[in-house]
Amino acid sequence: MSYQPTPADKFSFGLWTVGWTGRDPFGDATRAELDPVESVERLAELGAWGVTFHDDDLIPFGAPTAEREARIKRFRQALDSTGMVVPMATTNLFTHPVFKDGAFTANDRDVRRYALRKTLRNIDLAAELGASTYVAWGGREGAESGAAKDVRVALDRLKEAFDLFADYVTEQGYDLRFALEPKPNEPRGDILLPTVGHALAFIERLERPELFGVNPEVGHEQMAGLNFPHGIAQALWAGKLFHIDLNGQNGIKYDQDLRFGAGDLRSAFWLVDLLESAGYDGPRHFDFKPPRTEDMDGVWASAAGGMRNYLILKERAAAFRADPRTAEALAASRLDELARPTLNEGETASALLADRSAFEEFDPDAAARRGMAFEQLDQLAMDHLLGAAG
Amino acid sequence: MSYQPTPADKFSFGLWTVGWTGRDPFGDATRAELDPVESVERLAELGAWGVTFHDDDLIPFGAPTAEREARIKRFRQALDSTGMVVPMATTNLFTHPVFKDGAFTANDRDVRRYALRKTLRNIDLAAELGASTYVAWGGREGAESGAAKDVRVALDRLKEAFDLFADYVTEQGYDLRFALEPKPNEPRGDILLPTVGHALAFIERLERPELFGVNPEVGHEQMAGLNFPHGIAQALWAGKLFHIDLNGQNGIKYDQDLRFGAGDLRSAFWLVDLLESAGYDGPRHFDFKPPRTEDMDGVWASAAGGMRNYLILKERAAAFRADPRTAEALAASRLDELARPTLNEGETASALLADRSAFEEFDPDAAARRGMAFEQLDQLAMDHLLGAAG
Amino acid sequence: MSYQPTPADKFSFGLWTVGWTGRDPFGDATRAELDPVESVERLAELGAWGVTFHDDDLIPFGAPTAEREARIKRFRQALDSTGMVVPMATTNLFTHPVFKDGAFTANDRDVRRYALRKTLRNIDLAAELGASTYVAWGGREGAESGAAKDVRVALDRLKEAFDLFADYVTEQGYDLRFALEPKPNEPRGDILLPTVGHALAFIERLERPELFGVNPEVGHEQMAGLNFPHGIAQALWAGKLFHIDLNGQNGIKYDQDLRFGAGDLRSAFWLVDLLESAGYDGPRHFDFKPPRTEDMDGVWASAAGGMRNYLILKERAAAFRADPRTAEALAASRLDELARPTLNEGETASALLADRSAFEEFDPDAAARRGMAFEQLDQLAMDHLLGAAG
Amino acid sequence: MSYQPTPADKFSFGLWTVGWTGRDPFGDATRAELDPVESVERLAELGAWGVTFHDDDLIPFGAPTAEREARIKRFRQALDSTGMVVPMATTNLFTHPVFKDGAFTANDRDVRRYALRKTLRNIDLAAELGASTYVAWGGREGAESGAAKDVRVALDRLKEAFDLFADYVTEQGYDLRFALEPKPNEPRGDILLPTVGHALAFIERLERPELFGVNPEVGHEQMAGLNFPHGIAQALWAGKLFHIDLNGQNGIKYDQDLRFGAGDLRSAFWLVDLLESAGYDGPRHFDFKPPRTEDMDGVWASAAGGMRNYLILKERAAAFRADPRTAEALAASRLDELARPTLNEGETASALLADRSAFEEFDPDAAARRGMAFEQLDQLAMDHLLGAAG
Repeated sequence: MSYQPTPADKFSFGLWTVGWTGRDPFGDATRAELDPVESVERLAELGAWGVTFHDDDLIPFGAPTAEREARIKRFRQALDSTGMVVPMATTNLFTHPVFKDGAFTANDRDVRRYALRKTLRNIDLAAELGASTYVAWGGREGAESGAAKDVRVALDRLKEAFDLFADYVTEQGYDLRFALEPKPNEPRGDILLPTVGHALAFIERLERPELFGVNPEVGHEQMAGLNFPHGIAQALWAGKLFHIDLNGQNGIKYDQDLRFGAGDLRSAFWLVDLLESAGYDGPRHFDFKPPRTEDMDGVWASAAGGMRNYLILKERAAAFRADPRTAEALAASRLDELARPTLNEGETASALLADRSAFEEFDPDAAARRGMAFEQLDQLAMDHLLGAAG
Repeated sequence: MSYQPTPADKFSFGLWTVGWTGRDPFGDATRAELDPVESVERLAELGAWGVTFHDDDLIPFGAPTAEREARIKRFRQALDSTGMVVPMATTNLFTHPVFKDGAFTANDRDVRRYALRKTLRNIDLAAELGASTYVAWGGREGAESGAAKDVRVALDRLKEAFDLFADYVTEQGYDLRFALEPKPNEPRGDILLPTVGHALAFIERLERPELFGVNPEVGHEQMAGLNFPHGIAQALWAGKLFHIDLNGQNGIKYDQDLRFGAGDLRSAFWLVDLLESAGYDGPRHFDFKPPRTEDMDGVWASAAGGMRNYLILKERAAAFRADPRTAEALAASRLDELARPTLNEGETASALLADRSAFEEFDPDAAARRGMAFEQLDQLAMDHLLGAAG
Repeated sequence: MSYQPTPADKFSFGLWTVGWTGRDPFGDATRAELDPVESVERLAELGAWGVTFHDDDLIPFGAPTAEREARIKRFRQALDSTGMVVPMATTNLFTHPVFKDGAFTANDRDVRRYALRKTLRNIDLAAELGASTYVAWGGREGAESGAAKDVRVALDRLKEAFDLFADYVTEQGYDLRFALEPKPNEPRGDILLPTVGHALAFIERLERPELFGVNPEVGHEQMAGLNFPHGIAQALWAGKLFHIDLNGQNGIKYDQDLRFGAGDLRSAFWLVDLLESAGYDGPRHFDFKPPRTEDMDGVWASAAGGMRNYLILKERAAAFRADPRTAEALAASRLDELARPTLNEGETASALLADRSAFEEFDPDAAARRGMAFEQLDQLAMDHLLGAAG
Repeated sequence: MSYQPTPADKFSFGLWTVGWTGRDPFGDATRAELDPVESVERLAELGAWGVTFHDDDLIPFGAPTAEREARIKRFRQALDSTGMVVPMATTNLFTHPVFKDGAFTANDRDVRRYALRKTLRNIDLAAELGASTYVAWGGREGAESGAAKDVRVALDRLKEAFDLFADYVTEQGYDLRFALEPKPNEPRGDILLPTVGHALAFIERLERPELFGVNPEVGHEQMAGLNFPHGIAQALWAGKLFHIDLNGQNGIKYDQDLRFGAGDLRSAFWLVDLLESAGYDGPRHFDFKPPRTEDMDGVWASAAGGMRNYLILKERAAAFRADPRTAEALAASRLDELARPTLNEGETASALLADRSAFEEFDPDAAARRGMAFEQLDQLAMDHLLGAAG
């Protein structure tokens, strides 16, 4: 197998990923700024399918209208000539100092209004460029100290913003849904909607919840020590996996944004297994930062590596699922029983209470002696992951 | 101020807390078993208001019916003679080896049915003893390896269980609501519904969501590095804070279950500030484990210490809120502006788009220069916390 | 390649690993006690080379002398008949409640003296059975609260204990060295000598430092978020890697003790690469806990899986190092330059100060533009790890 | 008590702390650059005793000699006119892109030589300005991927650098010692010498270990979940606490650099208790970053707050130690017994083996029943911390 990506794989990249110049909290940029057109062309050559952007990735903050239009036009031409699509766009509500205390939940009301306007403007552009998903990462919506943010009130403000956007896209007839991207911390001490769960819960209190889903990022959940495939599974279960950010992270520490496959490899395997077997058909979006040690060759190697790793893991997961030993091992671990409802068809509490085999005649000690055979199952999976399944 | 608790403080304790014998993963019990009646009496003397229990705390697993009834009777008498109440009860679905792979989501269907029955039985007792909250901690609902649990299917099973219980209490006319208690891991490698957010989201997919809320535990959220008061604020915002477990934890590590106040003291201050100012009127329930280094004197000192710490923090939070400097500092940090809606009354997207002051004429650089005055605000709060506010 | 272990691989297992009955902080044992003789025989069949033990694994705490001797005799016979060796032994200073506040640093002096005696007794047995390493894990040497332990004084007590043991083995002429096993926390809130670094530093203050090294455990360092191969490299650099505990851990949480290969797979790859390329010739000792979901078949599968994973990773690391592309990639990343001393032969500070090319004529901007080519190197390694290097 | 700092408190600040402009990984600077002279003057007014600096804080990277000297002169004048001292200096080996792969352990040899020269130059300035401590934080000495750094070889290079510096200050007759500052990660994925322990161990392999100690930073150890006072205690025990960086951190996440007192308040209390009772007489150095939400008023409030918190905690710790109940509680917890050697004067292993009371006649079950009274002791400490000890 060649592991050569094609557009059918639906791999997309943020302009800000390959375009990251390497400035970090302790150091200056190590790479020059990258022309978005070059990014589109190089990513297309590597086999990618789409590119995504923050408004300010494409058009410098505060650029005059004429420059804005010229840049959009050039970008469109690059898309046209490469066949690349724009499946998603988002707003930069974190770089400019005006957002130092947040955007939709900034204590300053004029900042909040400005953030709404900045977002509405880019929603128009997203729709114009054919995006079907609009991501909202509220990286500055949070606090470092206890009294600085009244969280309940801030959630009211957040709801206000998203309800407005939902009304707007509905009125405009845009075919655009929103994907909230959770993160526990950094750059704020604690960020609102810190995990996939918190975002899913918040959505249910919006006026048009059907327009909202989540955009989980591998490293963000892992920064809270959470099992990423488990979070994705709950999002899928809720019908809310609208988009996904693939990258790598080595556990609970600062946001590393490594290429996909770096970091927790076993978790990456189970993630690909889940996405592929659940029939997820959205973009496989890479949101990472090629390390600042790298020059542009390293950047493109990093972009290629992420796609390659996805394809290797996809092949290995498929082999695992197709192996007859896997079916046996799953049965030995009674996954088939888990798939059966606990209650009989139509069984009520009274019926269950009348079933003596369920309690009075059930022997817990005997039942407890049954081994779950999880170690055998997991080793078989690891053999497949490692290409050592024979 | 005396910091002497009274029943009006609504302090409650699990029988399993003061009764913990000190067995840990590496060591045997260091204390003898404690008679629940003694717990009730001692806790009443200390100023507590209520006690809570797992079925197996009160009645040994598998005890014959006569013994069960005798034990319940003795317990009731202790309640009557002390005036202690039972605000909450819960099921032990984790100690017996039969639950080694979970209860409502165990792969083995007979284990799941048994778990439903064990729970229904204790729901009856909870109702009989006057509890209004039934807690469900699914500590064994999880996995250590990737294929061992199909999470989407497991969530179906979890929903099945809770829908059954909701039907049951409705049919029985019990005045009982359920509070789900999240935890990220331990004793399972990863537990389903790992945070307050995940539990809140799950509840929205149940058939009778109005009967379900959460029972967050300080240490459980902190084991994921999450800001506990923020999680509580989101639960309150969603109308779902049905119960709370107070204890202490020193960051991301094994579940320490220290007494309330130990661990992150500043977070404890903000928690009490939030609970008291939000008008939370449920139990202040202590779920902790007096360290196994302690004898029974240490156990009671630990129980008394948790209540004392709550009362000290309550006093300090009230003083902070009452200080005229606090109102000034909050205004300097524009918390008043956060409380104002971002949109004008009835303002739509088009109206906002027409407001040139919001965007075209807004000067982000000038706005960015305004300091948020959070350091002054936080230091004032710290002064109050430390009783050094002068 | 068969991945079938042989004694030449020097795989050893603690009796307490396969013999773990599955009792955890929230649940009772799920497996029966295992006869040490059965462990020896089964491990030998699986291809292991050695077994290790705590005194109480072999002889129940407090057993009369006759029973003790009978058990030792039976154990020796099993060793003889299988050819298994005992490369290491250690003391259980954590299970009995008497050690609830520690052993060598317990506040109670009589407990400390008892701990010394218990250890001396087992050192004799270790020497008698041919062990060359004596491990000391001070799991209970720590505290949950600030005033409970004066750490400087406790380190004096710890030094006192190890100096005594060093004198003792020297006087007895035992060919036995000590390996300290660090752990950051659990079962104590904070444990003394929490990391490999702290243990290495402590050793330098002992009277006979040459008799002391470290026994790092994968999961213990990872519970502090540390890079395990980095810690091993520093131990090797200091000449202090006397023994190693192989297992798996999913990041910063409770001590999981998964089989080797589970947990952070990429880190496991780099560990094996390091051990094999550094010429480490000590035991590859598995210290893990087969999950309590498993019956005995799962236990043996887990033991076999750990060895298998080591052998797969060894093969992959060797292939990576043998690949001509690796040499090229390492050169592109200038690992060869790192191997050259920074100073010229005999160069002093004054000589360096006189070298204008080093500073006055050095162009940092030009130097900064060189890419490090780490992404290409890392992807090549990952291809080898996954058996996808073509 | 006024909590007003004076020079006798030996509070010092890095120029880079109050001068931090607020640029973070996701956002641009929110504050203008600060003139070092203004920092000296304002800090002096606030009651500080000293200032510290990286070479590039005082003199812009690459500034011509004349500018360099003019800046130094102005700085000296500010010191003279305010009476502020320079107790410590350090080198910036992380901001310029040339250090993207490290300084003393960069794979590129010319970068390493340049880093040596840059450091030697600033050592001269440090000595000239009267500093007695030279701090070395190797924030870029590390790696993000496994093969990118051969750690054993890198430690050789690190030793080479420090041996050179030690020779140099010896030859020059400078009264200057070095303090290594550990950090586990950020800005590199994993940094060499990640904890106090690793640094202490490394020092023992240097040629002039007596010239080297550590400069632990609160947040750095807490980023690995380690107990900071425990690490300080081990450094003191080893005679190696040469300097200390005070700040605040909320657990395991990105480097927050909050003001001292923010973050883990109980740990801060025990730290001050330890420093004051151990007779540490070095600088109390604040290394923090006033949050970027703040304007300059907030910056100075943050600086003042850190000093104030130290003084409050110092007062509380002293009160705790002076309280007669504390002596009783410590005795009840047998801290006095911990202070007694475990062995009798001159007692050897054989003598201990002959003491039947230590083993044969010792009753572990009886001994285990003694409670440690740690909960009472800890609550007394908390009462003092909170000013609620009555």
